[in-house]
Amino acid sequence: MDYASMTPTTLRQLMRQGELARPTAGMAKGHVQANLAIVPKDLAYDFLLFAQRNPKPCPVLDVTDPGSPEPKLMAPGADLRYDAPKYRIYKAGVLADEVVSLEKYWRDDLVAFLLGCSFTFETALLAAGVPVRHIEACCNVPMYITNNPCRPAGKFHGNMVVSMRPVPHDKVVKAVQVTSRFPAVHGAPVHIGDPAVIGIRDLGRPDFGDPVEIRDGEVPVFWACGVTPQAVAMTTKPEIMITHAPGHMFLCDARDEDLAAF
Amino acid sequence: MDYASMTPTTLRQLMRQGELARPTAGMAKGHVQANLAIVPKDLAYDFLLFAQRNPKPCPVLDVTDPGSPEPKLMAPGADLRYDAPKYRIYKAGVLADEVVSLEKYWRDDLVAFLLGCSFTFETALLAAGVPVRHIEACCNVPMYITNNPCRPAGKFHGNMVVSMRPVPHDKVVKAVQVTSRFPAVHGAPVHIGDPAVIGIRDLGRPDFGDPVEIRDGEVPVFWACGVTPQAVAMTTKPEIMITHAPGHMFLCDARDEDLAAF
Repeated sequence: MDYASMTPTTLRQLMRQGELARPTAGMAKGHVQANLAIVPKDLAYDFLLFAQRNPKPCPVLDVTDPGSPEPKLMAPGADLRYDAPKYRIYKAGVLADEVVSLEKYWRDDLVAFLLGCSFTFETALLAAGVPVRHIEACCNVPMYITNNPCRPAGKFHGNMVVSMRPVPHDKVVKAVQVTSRFPAVHGAPVHIGDPAVIGIRDLGRPDFGDPVEIRDGEVPVFWACGVTPQAVAMTTKPEIMITHAPGHMFLCDARDEDLAAF
Repeated sequence: MDYASMTPTTLRQLMRQGELARPTAGMAKGHVQANLAIVPKDLAYDFLLFAQRNPKPCPVLDVTDPGSPEPKLMAPGADLRYDAPKYRIYKAGVLADEVVSLEKYWRDDLVAFLLGCSFTFETALLAAGVPVRHIEACCNVPMYITNNPCRPAGKFHGNMVVSMRPVPHDKVVKAVQVTSRFPAVHGAPVHIGDPAVIGIRDLGRPDFGDPVEIRDGEVPVFWACGVTPQAVAMTTKPEIMITHAPGHMFLCDARDEDLAAF
């Protein structure tokens, strides 16, 4: 199947039927893919406020009304209970289940957040001639917990998580320019160069994801990472929290360029 | 007194002492001025979500913790109960009082929102050689209710309000570019040209503010307006809502350029 050229609607339909429980990288090319985080209404204000105060790691694309599974802005008519390929259920901060449908977990007090994902700016980087090492290497992007505290909100506090991409020194400016256009998917880098400045001791040992090679003449460039809000929310051990399974993103109708700031 | 060259801290100190209850246009040049809206905690989620869903009219700069009068991001150490020059108290949607201190109205369940104000991008427009008619004419900017519905959130729904500035046709592109840099203060225009397209019948009769002259060769350019969230919130007739008095903005420590996206 040529998933790259299929529409988000068609692909979500396959997911709804349980026929496409696989990673979404490369699917519905040109369309926005989103992180999913679902929390009970009584945590939703703190979660939204945390995102508002930390827009680089937590760019909010859509928030559902309590109990409604429809992301009206990003995919009107879709149903977040069935239309992502795979979900993870966390109870009191511990992974309790992995499912392809939220049928038995959905509740009338749940609020779903769709958060921007770096797939959008990686497509733009590649289009601008900036190589993306972890895509070349077919592995996950390396992610690190920094010493940079997020601004707290209610129950939520913790340090920013960043992703790292090695960029040839003559492409660093272009990488800043290209990603600046997409504030809704983490935007411009938060740091360029020496990892120690942001509290990272060893680039070879990421906190999440896989290490990647840094070649001569390449500079490590760090972007705020969408793992941040989930990691922070999890430390509060919410009674229930639901996310997508890693790499199994929600496919939006919106196009990458719809998120461009200019 | 040369208010333009004084610091925000010094000016807020004068306001705290009740010695500067006047419009803030031109004060603390280069620093961000903000709209203020204060609602009870039980409305704060809907207000924040409304802003999240409608970032062009409702760019949130800061949200206080419930009961705390300190805007930690925009002016750490300041006290929103005393440090704005003049406040309006609305009860059930009706103007009930105008005061220079919130001493007798502050409550432990109040949440304050600071929202971006077009003063920031007007400074940038002038710096880029784009004239601003209502500043030349020493009057208020004309504002209009459009036929463009905001995305609803909880109790809040209503149409977008826009401000209008006539721009010479050879400066329209520059006006778009300059304001695109400042998404936190309404960003790029929402419409250029024919007012009928967005439901405005007569530019000579604005819904708020003052009419301004449109000269030969000038094009009306429309920006999302910070009056929108207050107007929308007011239609829900909240038990209490507090705002700054028109033109009497809160002075932030942040500089205009801190809000530039690129």
